[in-house]
Amino acid sequence: MKIIESNRAPNPRRVRIFLAEKSVDIPFEQIDLGKLDHKRPEFCEFNPMKQVPVLILDDGTCIAETVAICRYIEGIKPEPRLFGEGPLEQAKIEMWNRRLEFGLFFRVAQIFRHLHPAMKDMEVPQVSAWAEANRPRVYDMLSLIDGELADREFMAGDRYTIADITALVATDFMKPAKLARPPELVNFARWYDAVSARPSATA
Amino acid sequence: MKIIESNRAPNPRRVRIFLAEKSVDIPFEQIDLGKLDHKRPEFCEFNPMKQVPVLILDDGTCIAETVAICRYIEGIKPEPRLFGEGPLEQAKIEMWNRRLEFGLFFRVAQIFRHLHPAMKDMEVPQVSAWAEANRPRVYDMLSLIDGELADREFMAGDRYTIADITALVATDFMKPAKLARPPELVNFARWYDAVSARPSATA
Repeated sequence: MKIIESNRAPNPRRVRIFLAEKSVDIPFEQIDLGKLDHKRPEFCEFNPMKQVPVLILDDGTCIAETVAICRYIEGIKPEPRLFGEGPLEQAKIEMWNRRLEFGLFFRVAQIFRHLHPAMKDMEVPQVSAWAEANRPRVYDMLSLIDGELADREFMAGDRYTIADITALVATDFMKPAKLARPPELVNFARWYDAVSARPSATA
Repeated sequence: MKIIESNRAPNPRRVRIFLAEKSVDIPFEQIDLGKLDHKRPEFCEFNPMKQVPVLILDDGTCIAETVAICRYIEGIKPEPRLFGEGPLEQAKIEMWNRRLEFGLFFRVAQIFRHLHPAMKDMEVPQVSAWAEANRPRVYDMLSLIDGELADREFMAGDRYTIADITALVATDFMKPAKLARPPELVNFARWYDAVSARPSATA
């Protein structure tokens, strides 16, 4: 097994944190997104969607999409249960992971992709009005999360899950997207400090 | 159990098709998105993301997010396995479901939401340049799918899965988004005719 990734991009970081929390060791191979390596035909053989990361199994089978890779790892090494256990907990974790993907991660990414000069060859066309439309929605989502975290320790309940990984990577992605974290969101800050202090956060 | 939904919206349709394929019967309660019922405080108690559908369990627990609802149903009634069986098949189905969500469903939705006059109170601001940026990507994705379907019967392999439901609902959503299906994509047309002919398609 190996993972083809780019170590400065946010989705590969989600997988690295997931693997660190699982204590699963898979070798990484880097490609350079700045040189558009992910658009070359050799890479498209691994993932026609032209995105990293991709997990390549020993028989050559390619698994793309961050959450699909993580779910495969959960399947072969179930503990700790980062997708939860039993239908109800699994549904709640899926719900929160998706809310954080669409409501936070995706919106931060749109602001970065549609405004940052470094993205002009990758996001064509850059639509600045679309980036700006997402800006207030990021802050609405952070307020919502802050309210939720008044009553529980982690994003999807009382244990650390894939939803926390999604939220941590999205939050750190706010920095290159030039979005400030609102200091008044004290529950969110408490959660952020806790998940950032885990050894997996620097994976 | 009950599901709060709006029977003209695409995400509720994904859940209805899923339930029909599972032969699971859950009562539906309608809200009117045109009257912005989903933004009222009573509904936000069920889902602070202000989206339908929401599954409400007998103890009042709310599960939102289409795929989280479907996964809960799969958990309580596993057969037929619309999310697959075993780590590898489950990962492949998750991969294709996500590719179809982000690469097709989401892009069609953006075109509809940012161009259609009926959406002007729901998508604020409408950014027509963002809709147009998605248009060629829809057709790129349909071509990619057509190539994939040359070698297999369904979206994620040789059986019908949640990925087919996502793709069917996205394809039918092209009509209100005023996107034509390219007639030269014959594998895609064969797949579309087959999944549309299943009794679940009219659920």
